[in-house]
Amino acid sequence: MLISCPDQPGIVAAVSQFLFEHGANIVQSDQYTMDPEGGLFFIRIEFDLPDIEENIERFQRDFTHVANKFQMDWKLNLTSRKKRISIFVSKEDHCLLELLWHWRSGDLDVEIASVISNHPDTQPLVDSFGIPFYHVPVTADTKQEAEEKQLSILGDNVDVIILARYMQIISPSFIQHYADRIINIHHSFLPAFIGGKPYDRAHNRGVKIIGATAHYVTEELDGGPIIEQDVQRVSHRDNVEDLKRIGRQIERSVLAKAVAWHVEDRIIVHNNKTVVFS
Amino acid sequence: MLISCPDQPGIVAAVSQFLFEHGANIVQSDQYTMDPEGGLFFIRIEFDLPDIEENIERFQRDFTHVANKFQMDWKLNLTSRKKRISIFVSKEDHCLLELLWHWRSGDLDVEIASVISNHPDTQPLVDSFGIPFYHVPVTADTKQEAEEKQLSILGDNVDVIILARYMQIISPSFIQHYADRIINIHHSFLPAFIGGKPYDRAHNRGVKIIGATAHYVTEELDGGPIIEQDVQRVSHRDNVEDLKRIGRQIERSVLAKAVAWHVEDRIIVHNNKTVVFS
Amino acid sequence: MLISCPDQPGIVAAVSQFLFEHGANIVQSDQYTMDPEGGLFFIRIEFDLPDIEENIERFQRDFTHVANKFQMDWKLNLTSRKKRISIFVSKEDHCLLELLWHWRSGDLDVEIASVISNHPDTQPLVDSFGIPFYHVPVTADTKQEAEEKQLSILGDNVDVIILARYMQIISPSFIQHYADRIINIHHSFLPAFIGGKPYDRAHNRGVKIIGATAHYVTEELDGGPIIEQDVQRVSHRDNVEDLKRIGRQIERSVLAKAVAWHVEDRIIVHNNKTVVFS
Amino acid sequence: MLISCPDQPGIVAAVSQFLFEHGANIVQSDQYTMDPEGGLFFIRIEFDLPDIEENIERFQRDFTHVANKFQMDWKLNLTSRKKRISIFVSKEDHCLLELLWHWRSGDLDVEIASVISNHPDTQPLVDSFGIPFYHVPVTADTKQEAEEKQLSILGDNVDVIILARYMQIISPSFIQHYADRIINIHHSFLPAFIGGKPYDRAHNRGVKIIGATAHYVTEELDGGPIIEQDVQRVSHRDNVEDLKRIGRQIERSVLAKAVAWHVEDRIIVHNNKTVVFS
Repeated sequence: MLISCPDQPGIVAAVSQFLFEHGANIVQSDQYTMDPEGGLFFIRIEFDLPDIEENIERFQRDFTHVANKFQMDWKLNLTSRKKRISIFVSKEDHCLLELLWHWRSGDLDVEIASVISNHPDTQPLVDSFGIPFYHVPVTADTKQEAEEKQLSILGDNVDVIILARYMQIISPSFIQHYADRIINIHHSFLPAFIGGKPYDRAHNRGVKIIGATAHYVTEELDGGPIIEQDVQRVSHRDNVEDLKRIGRQIERSVLAKAVAWHVEDRIIVHNNKTVVFS
Repeated sequence: MLISCPDQPGIVAAVSQFLFEHGANIVQSDQYTMDPEGGLFFIRIEFDLPDIEENIERFQRDFTHVANKFQMDWKLNLTSRKKRISIFVSKEDHCLLELLWHWRSGDLDVEIASVISNHPDTQPLVDSFGIPFYHVPVTADTKQEAEEKQLSILGDNVDVIILARYMQIISPSFIQHYADRIINIHHSFLPAFIGGKPYDRAHNRGVKIIGATAHYVTEELDGGPIIEQDVQRVSHRDNVEDLKRIGRQIERSVLAKAVAWHVEDRIIVHNNKTVVFS
Repeated sequence: MLISCPDQPGIVAAVSQFLFEHGANIVQSDQYTMDPEGGLFFIRIEFDLPDIEENIERFQRDFTHVANKFQMDWKLNLTSRKKRISIFVSKEDHCLLELLWHWRSGDLDVEIASVISNHPDTQPLVDSFGIPFYHVPVTADTKQEAEEKQLSILGDNVDVIILARYMQIISPSFIQHYADRIINIHHSFLPAFIGGKPYDRAHNRGVKIIGATAHYVTEELDGGPIIEQDVQRVSHRDNVEDLKRIGRQIERSVLAKAVAWHVEDRIIVHNNKTVVFS
Repeated sequence: MLISCPDQPGIVAAVSQFLFEHGANIVQSDQYTMDPEGGLFFIRIEFDLPDIEENIERFQRDFTHVANKFQMDWKLNLTSRKKRISIFVSKEDHCLLELLWHWRSGDLDVEIASVISNHPDTQPLVDSFGIPFYHVPVTADTKQEAEEKQLSILGDNVDVIILARYMQIISPSFIQHYADRIINIHHSFLPAFIGGKPYDRAHNRGVKIIGATAHYVTEELDGGPIIEQDVQRVSHRDNVEDLKRIGRQIERSVLAKAVAWHVEDRIIVHNNKTVVFS
């Protein structure tokens, strides 16, 4: 359960009292008060409640009273229900493969509804995992049409879209369908190298550290809420190809972490920033 | 307020309800349930309560009812009351200096009651900070006498002792006076190089990473609960002197972090491990 | 070309003069003098020499004069000749997969001669990469027989054996066949947790950082020359399963780096330590 | 000895032959060929030559023949001659203190000619180290005058100027006096937050990692060659004050490393990038 609301005394008491009365045992709870910057209160509560699946409607109806009293923005997710994800990819397959691996090993506990690509290159790989692959070419002229096709493939039961090195810009109207539900991996340490060819530019600038950034996609290019970042040292000996190779390793692990946190409902987005209860 | 007790439903509800009824606003709260390993529940709650200083006795008496119901092990510390620390040091001054710096800059919000050393070397430095310095020589024959002198200097209002590269082994009886209240910095990545000359041994073993460990002192040499560790890469080019120089930087920052967490009451010790709500 | 010899003036001059006279252009050169600890000199020289493949015998014969003068221990490898590796694995496939991936993406430029396992589990995976898989069961009684079978599969043209989470102890006689040519990944930060179940023991000790170590296999269990190590932070929240999951990521990347350095001839072993010209 | 020149066969042979003939023993040598990007060759050679101080003029004259043949850009520094540095500082003293510490402990082997500040705050500290302190106020109107005063204090025998959190922009004419000899610590991971208040902006952007960058000062604000960078993880829990506190630790260590590398002649600047033979 993820809650955000204006801070005031009694929130934790009210929520924990409610859960106790409904027979739930709190397993984990993380909270954060953004005091000087707007007085907002965020909390994530993970609890055990054996019969919640049958009684979820009543549970939610009852909680509405608590929520209204404190003007809460809240959502409740059952861990028993797996998130459904769709992966968008272009030609480079390292991020896709990392996700497929984590999925097959059980470390990423989701259902992969589809892999959608503007190139056919990764089809054999995706087929070998038994996951539906859709080739949807995109050109400047066919972009709108392609996005409509993508939306129809996605249907209405995909929880989150992962851009695993998908090299097309998503249109604002598409983004609105999946607000705070499209995760992109940007191959640099944002906001250092927004836009294309970040490793070339990092090399030209002579940086000693390169990085990767996973963020939610918003209309502003590479400007959405940052979920996770990581970096690695490089030196003058590393040419652009080396930076790309090193960068691929960072991209893989950063994206995998961000996706895991999202599907475990550990992220609250607020004011273009993320609160990550990792 | 730090609480540990057997896990059961209703703890958070009871505590937060209690705080709400006494007019407290929870600023931060971290909890951890050690489920499969004993069913223990740990929580740290930081709250605002304007008039607590005047009413602390009544507050504690009232809370005893809650505590007894859940068999709680608990303590309450007022952030308005600064912790008093004493620093033990031998000849090397880098860890001592780091703490003095953090103290002077305000990053370490404590009162430094004394610096006690078995060597006179650091006296001028300590004097320049206006802190009482005591030279208590220690030899094999005078160890017991020296420890009695140290205890009498400490008196009964020092909260925590920091061994900032103090190269003497503390006796069990001394440790009992300050159980879970003596922090040592060990100059290696424990449990890799327990005992003396860890950098020499790390060099002989050809490790590619060296580290430092801050831990509470127990009777078992270098075996107490680990508070914090950090590491840095080294290579074949680094000789023992280089390892020591690099190690000093790690020791400084690891010890400073551990001390800060302790004086902010962020650490619970349980079964020779620490729960650190950092 | 990798050279080690007692240090004395004139070595670099002699070698570089030799290479210049034979028409070679030095592309990269790294050297290291282990002065106070034995006066040994190590150098790795990477050079371009267009017609070396035809003239390699004459080149080596000529260089013998230089080598003898300085008592050099040296070897020359052609980058045009790919190293042949064999991967040993048990049930866990994450390290195996990482190597197969790097190989397929071209980041690991080797020929994979075989994958040998004491369990059949990874066969489908290995088959899908088109690499020969051999199932060689090992029990306490059949160990010698099994090792003979492994040696016969390896034949005489495998350069290096990678133990990618191979959970059997290799016998001294097998090790002698491949001295400094068997790389193991140990799932802890050596020498912290030598032997089995290191993550369980790390959890019991309450460490705040876990690691993995790639090393050459010698007769001393987990005591061989360390090639590479890396670590990651953990906390009290991570249970043993979490440590294993986090550990798998470290193991993958540490082993991949160590293998890459070995096949690029960047490692010299001396006195149970490695000099890595990375 | 630091050399850069167009790459061609025979450079190493010629230089090492020259050193051998003059009786020098090469202690360390690092080289780097920037092949596809201009064919430049860089080398740093550290050698022992007992009587070099008496014969340095002849040695340099002799080497000019080698240098001319290969169009070398070169310089020779005697490790026996300590570099002289001047530290510029404003009000914040953490970077200044770090350098003074490393100097006093012997880790930074330089002569500190002066500390120059536009504020009087750090004078007592600097006095306590026995180092000449100069208070040179700077206003918009008096900038030119102030810089002239600074130049006259520096005289003509200061090797490098360290801006240890000196919050004034240096004029182009001043920079020209000390080209590639003014080191600045920028309190962010360049090029992410060029200009003022980087921690505030990092917080607004919600980054998960903050950093610091040491670079040579050029006319382009925060655009000079990067020497060293480092980073640390932060989270949504860290407010701007926390970022500044964490940032101070990174700034201290990054600046100290950059200064050490400079005074040990480990850095070659080329095309707004650095080659650091660390």
